[in-house]
Amino acid sequence: MQALKDRILAEGQNLGSGILKIDSILNHQIYPDLMVEMGREMAKRFEGIHIDRILTAEISGIAPALTTGMVLNVPVVYARKKKPITMAGPVFLETAPSHTKGGDVPLLVSAEFLHAGEKVLIVDDFLATGKTLMALARMVQSAKAEVVGVGVVVEKSFEGGRELMRQNGYSHLPIEALATIINMDNGRIVLAE
Amino acid sequence: MQALKDRILAEGQNLGSGILKIDSILNHQIYPDLMVEMGREMAKRFEGIHIDRILTAEISGIAPALTTGMVLNVPVVYARKKKPITMAGPVFLETAPSHTKGGDVPLLVSAEFLHAGEKVLIVDDFLATGKTLMALARMVQSAKAEVVGVGVVVEKSFEGGRELMRQNGYSHLPIEALATIINMDNGRIVLAE
Repeated sequence: MQALKDRILAEGQNLGSGILKIDSILNHQIYPDLMVEMGREMAKRFEGIHIDRILTAEISGIAPALTTGMVLNVPVVYARKKKPITMAGPVFLETAPSHTKGGDVPLLVSAEFLHAGEKVLIVDDFLATGKTLMALARMVQSAKAEVVGVGVVVEKSFEGGRELMRQNGYSHLPIEALATIINMDNGRIVLAE
Repeated sequence: MQALKDRILAEGQNLGSGILKIDSILNHQIYPDLMVEMGREMAKRFEGIHIDRILTAEISGIAPALTTGMVLNVPVVYARKKKPITMAGPVFLETAPSHTKGGDVPLLVSAEFLHAGEKVLIVDDFLATGKTLMALARMVQSAKAEVVGVGVVVEKSFEGGRELMRQNGYSHLPIEALATIINMDNGRIVLAE
C-alpha cells in the first residue's frame, strides 16, 4: 500500500535490534484518513473470504482492526493484556513474548466474544516473530472457531514470523501485510516493492 | 444518543461498586457501526469549536477517539500506560488512579505529539471520578496547548467527576457525554433522559 510505505519511509525510525519506530502513524498517533485507507485495503485483501469477526490484540491492533471491521461490517474483539475488573466469566488465555516491552504478555479474550464455528480474521499492527499472531490463532482454535486469514499493517519479513506460522499448522492460511520491511541492518529501512 | 443508551440497557451489567460492564460494546468488543455513529455524534457535540487534535488514553478510548477523529479529520494521539521501547525522547507524564485495575496508572505522551498552541479535544470511554481526564488535561497544559472540550462515551454522574473538573479550573469547558448513568444502586442501571 503505497501511502503507507511512503509514510513509513518519511516518518519511520530504525532504533536498532529490529525495532521500528512508527508511532507517528500506528503506535501512539493515528491519522484517521490513513487508518481508514488501511482498513479499506485490508478488507480488499480478503475479498471473497467469509468473515464473521475480527480478532486483534490491544493496543496498537485496535485501530486497524476497527477500520477493517468498518468495511467488513463485523464485530471486532481485542484481546486484553491485563484482566480488567469487568472481565467476568470464562476466558481464553494464551501468552506471547513481547517484542517492545520484554517478558511474556498474557492475552485474554472472554468466551462471550469468540464463538464456535465463526470464521475469524486476525488483524494486528506487526508480524515480526509471529508469536502474538499464533497466540491469537490458538485462542480461535480453543473456541472451536476458524482462522480464515491474518492481516497485518507491517511485516518485518527478516524476523521469520511468516515461516514460523507456515510450519506450525497455518501453511494454507492467507497472510497479508500492507507493507513489508525486508531489511533493517545498519540503520536502514528497506521495504519490499 | 439513543442507540447507545439502548445498547447499554440491553447488554450492560452492573457489577456493583459502580462498575459497569459494557465490554460487549466498548471495552473488549466493538461494533464498528455503533462506534462510527458514536464518533459522528461526538463530533456534532463540538460543532463550531476549532479542534486541531484529539487526545485519548489507551485502551478503550482509542476506538471512540478514532471515529471522532475520522469526522473532524484531525490526528488522534493515545496516551500510553507503559513506556514502549519505541518511545524515545521527552514525554509528558502524569498519573491517575485506575478505576478497574486498582493502583495508580501512568499516562505518557511523547512531546512530539502534543504541540504548543494546539486546540485539543479530549475523548475517553468513561467520565467517572474525572481523574484520568484531568491527568490528560494537565498534559495538554504542560504542552502549552489548550483543552477546548472533553467528550466521553459514558458518564457516571454519581461519581462526581464533572463537578471535580468544574472546581479545578475547567469551569467553562464543554463536557459532553453520549450517555449518562445517574444511578447504579441495588444492581440497577438508570440512565438520564
